[in-house]
Amino acid sequence: MTNAVTSAEDSAPDVNDERSVGCVETQTVELFAPPHPLKVEEGNDLGPIQVAYETYGNLSPKRDNAIFVCHALTGDAHVAGQHAPDSKKRGWWDDLVGPGKGLDTNKYFVICANVLGGCQGTTGPSCQKPGADQPYALEFPFVTIGDIVEVHAALVRHLGIERLLAAIGGSLGGMQALEWAARFPEMLRTAIVLASGPRLSAQGIAFNAVGRRAIVTDPNFHEGNFYNQEKGPRFGLALARMVAHITYLSEASIEQKFGRRLQHSDQFAYDLMRETEFQIESYLHHQGKRFVERFDANSYLYLTRAMDYFDLAQAYGTLADAFSKTDARFLVASYTTDWLFPISQSREIVSALVQARRRVSSVELESPYGHDSFLLEVDQLEEMLHPFLAEAYEMG
Amino acid sequence: MTNAVTSAEDSAPDVNDERSVGCVETQTVELFAPPHPLKVEEGNDLGPIQVAYETYGNLSPKRDNAIFVCHALTGDAHVAGQHAPDSKKRGWWDDLVGPGKGLDTNKYFVICANVLGGCQGTTGPSCQKPGADQPYALEFPFVTIGDIVEVHAALVRHLGIERLLAAIGGSLGGMQALEWAARFPEMLRTAIVLASGPRLSAQGIAFNAVGRRAIVTDPNFHEGNFYNQEKGPRFGLALARMVAHITYLSEASIEQKFGRRLQHSDQFAYDLMRETEFQIESYLHHQGKRFVERFDANSYLYLTRAMDYFDLAQAYGTLADAFSKTDARFLVASYTTDWLFPISQSREIVSALVQARRRVSSVELESPYGHDSFLLEVDQLEEMLHPFLAEAYEMG
Repeated sequence: MTNAVTSAEDSAPDVNDERSVGCVETQTVELFAPPHPLKVEEGNDLGPIQVAYETYGNLSPKRDNAIFVCHALTGDAHVAGQHAPDSKKRGWWDDLVGPGKGLDTNKYFVICANVLGGCQGTTGPSCQKPGADQPYALEFPFVTIGDIVEVHAALVRHLGIERLLAAIGGSLGGMQALEWAARFPEMLRTAIVLASGPRLSAQGIAFNAVGRRAIVTDPNFHEGNFYNQEKGPRFGLALARMVAHITYLSEASIEQKFGRRLQHSDQFAYDLMRETEFQIESYLHHQGKRFVERFDANSYLYLTRAMDYFDLAQAYGTLADAFSKTDARFLVASYTTDWLFPISQSREIVSALVQARRRVSSVELESPYGHDSFLLEVDQLEEMLHPFLAEAYEMG
Repeated sequence: MTNAVTSAEDSAPDVNDERSVGCVETQTVELFAPPHPLKVEEGNDLGPIQVAYETYGNLSPKRDNAIFVCHALTGDAHVAGQHAPDSKKRGWWDDLVGPGKGLDTNKYFVICANVLGGCQGTTGPSCQKPGADQPYALEFPFVTIGDIVEVHAALVRHLGIERLLAAIGGSLGGMQALEWAARFPEMLRTAIVLASGPRLSAQGIAFNAVGRRAIVTDPNFHEGNFYNQEKGPRFGLALARMVAHITYLSEASIEQKFGRRLQHSDQFAYDLMRETEFQIESYLHHQGKRFVERFDANSYLYLTRAMDYFDLAQAYGTLADAFSKTDARFLVASYTTDWLFPISQSREIVSALVQARRRVSSVELESPYGHDSFLLEVDQLEEMLHPFLAEAYEMG
């Protein structure tokens, strides 16, 4: 579709777009209020917990069409649509969620919630600590992928849903879908795991360690108590994002998108303090700067550690054991150029599912975009999701 | 060889070891003294330049057996042997350089010098600026791989050598060997290029950008003037080393060496401020700490930028053009798990050499060690170097 008057970039998204969920609002619910706090895996009690979530589409009378979208490390509850009619910003997976889309809101009731320990509406280290006049900061208890899923399962039950048609997620979101199948086997009819794995690789832990180190050595970190300070650890958090961002892209996609092109000139500046001479540098710096505007440094510490700790095989004995109780069907997708969660990780999941005699479909998708493919290659995903979900839905 | 009394680790290396070059000394020569300074590529004059170097073996009467070892980003002139009889520390490529070894000091005269802009004896930003009472710091002129090779070529001539039997190097050292063949085609009989490429990939530039950002945002950086301060940018430099170190290892080697093993316990600590919970974290932190003891943060900025800028095809028109004047034979080796300088980069060199009708042997070596393979897989290298160098030497 072209528009003769305004270019696509100039125009706000059309709320009347038939494929958009339109205007949506983030809602918040309080769960785990005393005397029923959440006992997190490390042992402490946590509550009350505010949970920020959004829903799209309508819950069927049988309450059997709900799909839970698990977001990745720095995502939020705002998957689709826009928060104001004149907003240009759409949800982070808007291409996948909407009427007629991969997660078809004409048929399905789609839910997404910010994760525990996050900073976009759900209780996390930047939130006021009950009974204190300060945010939790590092007094927030350690959280695991299991704790995150516990909170989301409570939200789903709060919405009157006993069983989800699907839990779907990529990366850290895929870990949540796997954990959900293991922890609440009766709650899932399908689990859709994209660009993820049963654990983070040692290389992934290494990159997370670098990111956390950048944050905690920033002199504005103040041992996590930076909320009342003039500045927070912006440099450290931006640096953490820069290094993480490299791991989300493939070498080929960086090469193709930026190559060795310069940002400002055709000539080298021979200026050591020009930090953004190459386009790729400029891009990374920009990503870092944008990130600190929307993300909390303490949440980054907590959630990367949760990712490091996740190890389904260790938690349940073996990976096959982790899947022994669920009767969910699995769809496992990996991407050829993803080096953060390489294809071998998905193969390991599939192999364990087969061993546990579960039903699994798996695809290894050709994509140049590295780990980010799960966010970008929506057409391929849509093609698979339609029949996979339709069959599961019809089978009841 | 075993020793019944002391373990190998307890004993100092045996200076009488027949395969060791034994005790060696770093020498220094002053070159480019006024009125004949070096005009560096960016345009400024630089001189005098101190050059730190070591030699091993004896120069033949015909002066035709000299091999120049080009060191990588953070290497130094001390390739082989030890600096004191009771020192346990050997040169960084001691396994390759010595009597009967890959670079056989019974036959060849081996030279290695610290690079221009470095911090281990050759003039760089941490050195006193002539006529000033301060180190150069960021007033040091920008240096390129070309400038580095200019200085080394002057050293070789100063030693009375017109033509090298070989220039050999891995990574940034390989870039120097390539540049040498292009810039001083008459000076090389062979060029041996390991784990390197005709330019740094955009992904490599990205990782360097992260490292430099860590240094310049360290509050102890003081815009490079940290030499008279109580502290330098130790955290930033250590962080730069941590992220770079990840790129030197393969995912498989990290997985094999560390996996998800914990450092202190079998149980998770659930402690967000414990930065070294996993062994891989502890290892990286240790690498960072060791690095700041021996390396200058400004040198790190200059040398990584020199690496970013290196682009042989751009400098000479095409890659084949860069090789059009040399009659050196090339040996190009790459390593299957090297993702910083992947095999494709070496293939590009070989392809350009064939196009330029040069003589080239190339090998793609199986190794699990990633980019570091060129330092570790010495046996494979030795097997190739012996006949390759012998033939070139005999052919004259």
